[in-house]
Amino acid sequence: MSTALERFSINQMTVKQLSMPELVEACVALEIGNVGLWREPVQSYGVEATAKLVRDAGLTVTTLCRGGFFTAIDPEERARALADNRRAVDEAATLGTDTLVLVSGGLPPGSKDLHGARERIADALAELGPYAERHGVRLAIEPLHPMYASDRCVVSTLTQALDLAERFPAHQVGVTVDTYHIWWDDTAPEQIARAGAGGRIHTFQLADWTTPLPEGVLNGRGQIGDGSIDMREWKGYVEAAGYTGPIEVELFNEELWARDGREVLAETAQRFVRNVIS
Amino acid sequence: MSTALERFSINQMTVKQLSMPELVEACVALEIGNVGLWREPVQSYGVEATAKLVRDAGLTVTTLCRGGFFTAIDPEERARALADNRRAVDEAATLGTDTLVLVSGGLPPGSKDLHGARERIADALAELGPYAERHGVRLAIEPLHPMYASDRCVVSTLTQALDLAERFPAHQVGVTVDTYHIWWDDTAPEQIARAGAGGRIHTFQLADWTTPLPEGVLNGRGQIGDGSIDMREWKGYVEAAGYTGPIEVELFNEELWARDGREVLAETAQRFVRNVIS
Repeated sequence: MSTALERFSINQMTVKQLSMPELVEACVALEIGNVGLWREPVQSYGVEATAKLVRDAGLTVTTLCRGGFFTAIDPEERARALADNRRAVDEAATLGTDTLVLVSGGLPPGSKDLHGARERIADALAELGPYAERHGVRLAIEPLHPMYASDRCVVSTLTQALDLAERFPAHQVGVTVDTYHIWWDDTAPEQIARAGAGGRIHTFQLADWTTPLPEGVLNGRGQIGDGSIDMREWKGYVEAAGYTGPIEVELFNEELWARDGREVLAETAQRFVRNVIS
Repeated sequence: MSTALERFSINQMTVKQLSMPELVEACVALEIGNVGLWREPVQSYGVEATAKLVRDAGLTVTTLCRGGFFTAIDPEERARALADNRRAVDEAATLGTDTLVLVSGGLPPGSKDLHGARERIADALAELGPYAERHGVRLAIEPLHPMYASDRCVVSTLTQALDLAERFPAHQVGVTVDTYHIWWDDTAPEQIARAGAGGRIHTFQLADWTTPLPEGVLNGRGQIGDGSIDMREWKGYVEAAGYTGPIEVELFNEELWARDGREVLAETAQRFVRNVIS
């Protein structure tokens, strides 16, 4: 692996047009040693088969995305969510990653109660945390940008994520630090320090902020260097907080998905070197 | 004026399909006593003419929207922005409102420096505040939702807005509390208390949060009651902080703009009574 890419990890979603074998092959060809995987393509290819594929290629799986969606009120729905999250933990363990990223869930239909929804996340973590620990997996609560608060994730800031995580041991529950979601927040640097001091930075992800945002605001995450975020600054914050782990680039971007996946992977690695490392 | 609508103010943008005389006529017909105006339609109709129109109809102008856009680096651009803001103060004074809402501006092209942009806002306020005071106008910094941080307003939270405002006397600079921008923020209630204690809640505005957000995320503000925000809860916070002034409904919404303006105005007043007052 090249030194400049030593800490680089490609999140599978960035190049979702690549099949699992194509992704692994392209990583090997580009001397990329780390990948973050998503449950749906892993399940399609088969969990054991994916584990073997990446292991045989010498790749490290840095995270599995994603568990979560803990905010339902209905007891049956909650039980189903917990069961599904236990399967996600199992899959993470099978893939050999120690980190399961959590997108916690939005408001249930008709509800306006953000506080109640956040408390239901804590209830779920109390059940899932010990299960994850027994399987050697850490849960990483990801605060999502406040524009997702109603329909995707009621945890909108690192402060809120840490307030939740700190109710549990750090080896059970920590946080995902993703530049896209927190770059606007001037309290985030001190929260990164708080997370680092507690050993709770379980993964560090990058995406750039570009406008105009597309309809639905899901698939407009910018290629590194194209937007408003100073990546070196944020890398500096997590490093000052003691984080020395992989740095995952996770882009949801229709334009990137429309291009050749290998070309996008090569470009993303170059952008990482140019805007984050050098 | 009906008692239920005593504190209701219709922000002109909500029914921008109405001409200035149509708006005033519709307000009188519906016993709505307060309007928030925007500079562009006021300038089109004429500042003096608008002042006379609303005064003759017995309407109160609760705010003028908007000044701001203080984040440019180029000295000439900064001078132009300040000159334009002095004109906005003059217009507010002519219209008889004591409150000019400020949208502070985004990142200049190519810049990734949110902190620097926020400091340039403070520099501008130091010049504009005394000018506004001499004209009997208070500046109301509006924190905009973090999804606007790069291209519209680097002030994303009430905390940031108050950190800026408190460098100046409260009768010069306060804040705009708008539910649409802050509803996701669990620190906002304590910041409203902070703002109230300092006499800095200069206006209180409502819009509801609905998804999916439209492309560009500008014109998807939901009609009161259609979304995720508990309006009574937020009214409770500002009232507990001592705010007893008008409550402005300001919606940017393509679907509402496509309908008959008088019908939308009547509906908005009804929604206000149903979801905010009763």
